[in-house]
Amino acid sequence: MLEKIETIREVRERLARLSSEARERRARGLVPTMGALHAGHAALIAAARRDCDVVVVSIFVNPLQFNNQDDLARYPRTLDTDLAYCRELGVDVVFAPSASEMYPQPLECSVDIGRLADHLCGSFRPGHFKGVATVVLKLFQIVQPSHAYFGEKDAQQLAIVKRLAVDFNLPIDVIEIPTVREPDGLAMSSRNRHLNPDDRRIAISLYRALDQARLVIAGGERRAAVVKKAAAATIPRADALKLEYLEIVDPSTMQPVDEINGSVRVAGALWVGSTRLIDNLLVP
Amino acid sequence: MLEKIETIREVRERLARLSSEARERRARGLVPTMGALHAGHAALIAAARRDCDVVVVSIFVNPLQFNNQDDLARYPRTLDTDLAYCRELGVDVVFAPSASEMYPQPLECSVDIGRLADHLCGSFRPGHFKGVATVVLKLFQIVQPSHAYFGEKDAQQLAIVKRLAVDFNLPIDVIEIPTVREPDGLAMSSRNRHLNPDDRRIAISLYRALDQARLVIAGGERRAAVVKKAAAATIPRADALKLEYLEIVDPSTMQPVDEINGSVRVAGALWVGSTRLIDNLLVP
Repeated sequence: MLEKIETIREVRERLARLSSEARERRARGLVPTMGALHAGHAALIAAARRDCDVVVVSIFVNPLQFNNQDDLARYPRTLDTDLAYCRELGVDVVFAPSASEMYPQPLECSVDIGRLADHLCGSFRPGHFKGVATVVLKLFQIVQPSHAYFGEKDAQQLAIVKRLAVDFNLPIDVIEIPTVREPDGLAMSSRNRHLNPDDRRIAISLYRALDQARLVIAGGERRAAVVKKAAAATIPRADALKLEYLEIVDPSTMQPVDEINGSVRVAGALWVGSTRLIDNLLVP
Repeated sequence: MLEKIETIREVRERLARLSSEARERRARGLVPTMGALHAGHAALIAAARRDCDVVVVSIFVNPLQFNNQDDLARYPRTLDTDLAYCRELGVDVVFAPSASEMYPQPLECSVDIGRLADHLCGSFRPGHFKGVATVVLKLFQIVQPSHAYFGEKDAQQLAIVKRLAVDFNLPIDVIEIPTVREPDGLAMSSRNRHLNPDDRRIAISLYRALDQARLVIAGGERRAAVVKKAAAATIPRADALKLEYLEIVDPSTMQPVDEINGSVRVAGALWVGSTRLIDNLLVP
């Protein structure tokens, strides 16, 4: 029976009861989300359901990670649908706190993430990853999961959360789940619902550019600048499209590389009308 | 039977066994120390012993919180004596990791503590409290205590750890234990063992100055500047003595106050020869 819980105290008490029912600490999976759930989230939940005795989904549109207040206001919120979806997927607990439950007062302490946030989205969304890392740490402390599930689509976020777990000795397995895509390749994203039909057709340009980068690298090109230029050239000239960045980085440090020697991640952000989409591919 | 454990993996396994012996999560107390244990630490351990089923003492001279490498090299290390003392005090587990166990690689993530570190020791020891907050968070994740014990003597550290627990939703009671003093009033400190007999005699000047501040406030003075001047004036002119700061702050925010309206903390740092001592008094 799925429960929705809104306060930190209640979620802790409920989880303690769930654990003690089994007389020992059971595997507890957390899927942190901002709601507006889609098939990408369902893949995270399915993995948690497979690995864990107790599955918790958090739904919280975290103000701390929005550097742009319009973006925060516009972020899709579909809590009733999300709850029904979680029920269908066999989630045990949905933790959906209010902003004042999570931030009863302005924080003094937060997470400093060093150079992992220096590039990619980190350069264009100042404070974003500090907000992500801080709320993830808070959710981890509240839910105390043994496993936590994140999508590869948000690769920089994933690298940061993995490093957070290592650096702070969090007793949590951070598990990476491959990006779920629409049939044409578009990465699933809550922001896709902002796309009108025209935007939707050209939104695929980002994935095509990343795929072009992959092909050029597979063809033997080692100079990142050449690969990036070839990839960006595939994006159609259209008023609605604006490439924010297309970068080639080391998959764990998220630092740009000049020479491609080994596995890299090709990542990009593309504005489609007033919607900002991100995507990335790991190129082994 | 006291155990000494040096690796993160072992301490977690041992603690899981200790907890499961009771078939439920028992109260687990952590006393984080840098070793060179004295009666001040004994008071922390006694409180933990009284409140908790399992008492863990960590002994780790944390390089991250030393802004001065000479100070780190010179910090007293007395592990064998400390272990015997812990055994005598009924400690269950001593966690004494190496620096490479705690920091196998340079950290990317650390704790940002905002304005709590702007004054007092924070102004004179850049990075010190960031290092303290980060190692405390790591120790909390490793040991997973339900209770953690800190001395009032390190009042700024205590305010920061309390705020860390609140801001990050750590499921831990941070418990404050009053400063233990020598018969003449000198606050117990591992650094006291650096004092030669002459230094030891004049080291009490710090406590006397703080006590003078308390008296002046009790006498009705509300202007912090006047109180500080009167307190500093009690410190004898001696080549070996150098007052680093004497400040009056709000006890929870650690911000200096100009007008004393309500409870304040009077805090100071005094160099006695080449030894830096700190102390403070809460003035209700």
